[in-house]
Amino acid sequence: MKTPVRLLAFLLFVIVTEGQAAGNAPAPSHGVPYPEGWKDWATIAVSHRNDNNTLRVILGNDVAVQAARAGNTNPWPDGAILGKVVWKDTLLENWKAATVPGEFVHAEFMFRDSKKYADSHGWGWARWVGLEQKPFDEGMAVCIACHTPVRNRGWVFTEPASLP
Amino acid sequence: MKTPVRLLAFLLFVIVTEGQAAGNAPAPSHGVPYPEGWKDWATIAVSHRNDNNTLRVILGNDVAVQAARAGNTNPWPDGAILGKVVWKDTLLENWKAATVPGEFVHAEFMFRDSKKYADSHGWGWARWVGLEQKPFDEGMAVCIACHTPVRNRGWVFTEPASLP
Repeated sequence: MKTPVRLLAFLLFVIVTEGQAAGNAPAPSHGVPYPEGWKDWATIAVSHRNDNNTLRVILGNDVAVQAARAGNTNPWPDGAILGKVVWKDTLLENWKAATVPGEFVHAEFMFRDSKKYADSHGWGWARWVGLEQKPFDEGMAVCIACHTPVRNRGWVFTEPASLP
Repeated sequence: MKTPVRLLAFLLFVIVTEGQAAGNAPAPSHGVPYPEGWKDWATIAVSHRNDNNTLRVILGNDVAVQAARAGNTNPWPDGAILGKVVWKDTLLENWKAATVPGEFVHAEFMFRDSKKYADSHGWGWARWVGLEQKPFDEGMAVCIACHTPVRNRGWVFTEPASLP
């Protein structure tokens, strides 16, 4: 190909692939981009809330998982992302004494960046709702209000689970 | 370095690093080697058992996670490893309606290999106990006995959690 044609082909390629990427990822929540790949993140903890009958797994990106394992969570380092995946609870058909995930509710995230998110206590607060991952956009203040009981521990409820 | 010296240095490096790797890994359980790296595996499900007050996260290696996401679990494919990480439950200090991981109990695994483990229903059953990861060696029959209620679903309790 002659150079102008090659350049045109390249630009077309960039436009198309960028468009696909944008098309696949859910829209941002509170301006925070969707954290692609979170389903492959490692586990930091789990929880079972009996006030709203939900089961949760708390995941972390590499920065968060390394910080959790090193006990370096006061404060969590910039770049850490904590993810909380939430399901309604239900009983396991073959072992009724076990409560397990039922309907998927949402996945919510805290993005640590002490400068970028200085106005929201050093965290970007985001949530994507339902299997369709609809961005939550009612404002970070909604998230922060619920986390107020843990304002003295960096606004994080999660205590990393003990692991060998 | 001259070639023989270089070769010697390389061999020494191999011996030392292999020795370290072997020294770090816990001994096999029921002849099944320790699945290094399981703490970085992705989540398949979670559960809360109120008969013995334990919280669990069910992890999978890449083969198992791909099978779970594709609904390809009847039977699980050879090469799949399911891991169940178990903690005694406790209440979260800052949100008493949340039950969270307390003391680490053990990590137990099912290794799918329909030929190698034909005598134990197509699974290698293994467990490592406590933070010291002491290999459980009371026999796979102990594990199988407890899984008998799910003999008709490939001996697996876990139902992969719904995910976007």
